[in-house]
Amino acid sequence: KIDAERLWDSLMEMAKIGPGVAGGNNRQTLTDEDGEGRKLFQSWCEKAGLTMGVDEMGDMFARREGEEPDLPPVYVGSHLDTQPTGGKYDGILGVLGGLELIRTLNDLNVKTRHPIVVTNWTNEEGTRFAPAMLASGVFAGALDRDWAYAREDADGKTFGAELERIGWKGEEKVGDRKMRAFFELHIEQGPILEAEGKEIGVVTHGQGLWWLQVTLTGRAAHTGSTPMSMRVNAGLGMARITELVHTIAMENQPDAVGAVGHCDVYPNSRNVIPEKTVFTIDFRSPDQAKLDGMKARLEAEAPKIAEELGLGIEIEEVGHFDPVTFDEGCVSAVRNAAERLGYSHQNIVSGAGHDACWINRVYPTAMVMCPCVDGLSHNEAEEITKDWAAAGANVLMHAVVETAEV
Amino acid sequence: KIDAERLWDSLMEMAKIGPGVAGGNNRQTLTDEDGEGRKLFQSWCEKAGLTMGVDEMGDMFARREGEEPDLPPVYVGSHLDTQPTGGKYDGILGVLGGLELIRTLNDLNVKTRHPIVVTNWTNEEGTRFAPAMLASGVFAGALDRDWAYAREDADGKTFGAELERIGWKGEEKVGDRKMRAFFELHIEQGPILEAEGKEIGVVTHGQGLWWLQVTLTGRAAHTGSTPMSMRVNAGLGMARITELVHTIAMENQPDAVGAVGHCDVYPNSRNVIPEKTVFTIDFRSPDQAKLDGMKARLEAEAPKIAEELGLGIEIEEVGHFDPVTFDEGCVSAVRNAAERLGYSHQNIVSGAGHDACWINRVYPTAMVMCPCVDGLSHNEAEEITKDWAAAGANVLMHAVVETAEV
Ligand SMILES: NC(=O)NCCC(=O)O
Ligand SMILES: NC(=O)NCCC(=O)O
Repeated sequence: KIDAERLWDSLMEMAKIGPGVAGGNNRQTLTDEDGEGRKLFQSWCEKAGLTMGVDEMGDMFARREGEEPDLPPVYVGSHLDTQPTGGKYDGILGVLGGLELIRTLNDLNVKTRHPIVVTNWTNEEGTRFAPAMLASGVFAGALDRDWAYAREDADGKTFGAELERIGWKGEEKVGDRKMRAFFELHIEQGPILEAEGKEIGVVTHGQGLWWLQVTLTGRAAHTGSTPMSMRVNAGLGMARITELVHTIAMENQPDAVGAVGHCDVYPNSRNVIPEKTVFTIDFRSPDQAKLDGMKARLEAEAPKIAEELGLGIEIEEVGHFDPVTFDEGCVSAVRNAAERLGYSHQNIVSGAGHDACWINRVYPTAMVMCPCVDGLSHNEAEEITKDWAAAGANVLMHAVVETAEV
Repeated sequence: KIDAERLWDSLMEMAKIGPGVAGGNNRQTLTDEDGEGRKLFQSWCEKAGLTMGVDEMGDMFARREGEEPDLPPVYVGSHLDTQPTGGKYDGILGVLGGLELIRTLNDLNVKTRHPIVVTNWTNEEGTRFAPAMLASGVFAGALDRDWAYAREDADGKTFGAELERIGWKGEEKVGDRKMRAFFELHIEQGPILEAEGKEIGVVTHGQGLWWLQVTLTGRAAHTGSTPMSMRVNAGLGMARITELVHTIAMENQPDAVGAVGHCDVYPNSRNVIPEKTVFTIDFRSPDQAKLDGMKARLEAEAPKIAEELGLGIEIEEVGHFDPVTFDEGCVSAVRNAAERLGYSHQNIVSGAGHDACWINRVYPTAMVMCPCVDGLSHNEAEEITKDWAAAGANVLMHAVVETAEV
């Protein structure tokens, strides 16, 4: 079994970097804080005797040698970046849980046939640079490296330039690694495991996702002296499309969600009719037909709303992946580990996107989930218990070691 | 008649300070650009032989002596501050039209019995610091000076501190001036005069206004893994209240308008359910009962929308004035001037708020309006013709001189 205290201490130590305003973290990708977090992780890896590789996307790969160095390693990991008002566990638990299993194997002097590599994927969150899971998407060949470099944040800074600025653009060609398998431990970020009283979620599937960005163009005008009939109000259009997104999601219940999370209004002045709004839509479902149907309906109806109000509309696709079915062998390894260790467990579908969703396209992959309090995530108040973290890391270790032997 | 070229040149010269991004201006109140604009105006006033006074609110008063210096002056003016994406004429025309009439009287060697004072009121626009017409409101005794000093912009800077910073906090007690009358020339900012083919609007009334700021409090959560039923979505609440504002305004047609101009979403991330939204509502009507009725209905129904979604709601009053009836004598002076000069004209209700609306509470006041292209204002594309500007300034001069004689 892993050392629950040591894992927890590392989580708390990492959480000191890029503290939030309400007990959580703001350690967004490719900020100075992300750089600091990476350095801390690197120093821990070195102490654990691992050798670090960094690829062109800034992905970090810390390797523990196997008895047969030429065999493809078992990879384990997640991400260290956070939301702007994020929690201390979302992603971090998967990386430091991987590190903890290495430390435990070191303590126990256990050798594995295959090498084991602990990974920190760059820009999983996707808030600063859309889409989410950018680097694992490039690694898996689903996204293009140079397209990724050109992604811009709200200030117009590019992913490529910021990666260089913080000093984590490596030489290694992205995607140039063979994997025996990939395992990701992550908090559920939803309410199911806690409600069912289960310690472990065996993730069999992942929801698919469509991220759209809508730009409405109206006409700036005085809110007092412009008659209602002469207004071309991009804010009203945003309100109606926000309601449409909600309606579409509700009509696809269960197994579908939809929301508008990011809104920009121009010129954003009390006495000016909004002349432009830019906002994002997030549709998800584990059901491919529902997922694509929600997007198609939005694309059919939003332009009608715009037309009625005299607004110009542009709908851009800024993120997408299909629903995922994880590898049967890896999923079994997770289930067997939970069983062996005597943890209560159940199958679960991941509501969030994860680096594992992309890696599953190229190598056998599975995920271990542990509960989080009130299902809350992407919130500084995100919380888990030390026991949940330990259970997750133990299952991870056993699944990894089993897979690294064959 | 005034010198139309000179007036236009001054307008274009002022527009060079704080240029916008699309041909207009961004010279918001108490910014460095506002300070520069004030200096330019001051230098022009000095060249025209005027003496400058500045009060505690930063209001500028440039005085041309009358034959009887002890008589209360006739005041004329408007504001030099602009919207973040504002036009070159909104406010500026009234200040520089006042200066132009002084220059013309100087050229013609005309003396007036009463002194004439050209005024630049501070923070008319109200975008950076709500409410609008802040300084004229304090001057008229409708708003409190220290309350005004404490108004904060989006960065938490106060009006008082910023006024000192740009060096325009005067010693003179605000409101400590007697006026024979006040005249304000302004562009219509609406479509009526142009549509009716009139050169001059004789402003008889002004709309009343309610500005409200709504804060909705929900719960940040993951957009993917949080079931629809567990969401407390402050963005959806904002959308529904935006629609409600529109509905209320439409049900009070004609003679009522309503819109949401400013929206802030927290944490504003694609994959986070908005946990907080802060947005502003602008209701206006020339009809007191409609105006107050729209506000009352919003205050009754918005909390129901919030409750249905599980959201906390706070509604704050951030600006208000009642519908205005301008002084009969001053209005006649404007109408007579237009008549005498042979300009086409009609009575009109001001859709926007103006410093004249506050000053009318304490001294006889009227306004002269000139058309603007497509009724467009609070937009960098705001445009007027040289002839319209000249007609307005001529009517202003004749009304002022007539009033300064009796
Ligand atoms: N796990 C997680 O929050 N990933 C970010 C991408 C997403 O929004 O699902
Ligand atoms: N004239 C003008 O735009 N004033 C600003 C206050 C308002 O919104 O009416």
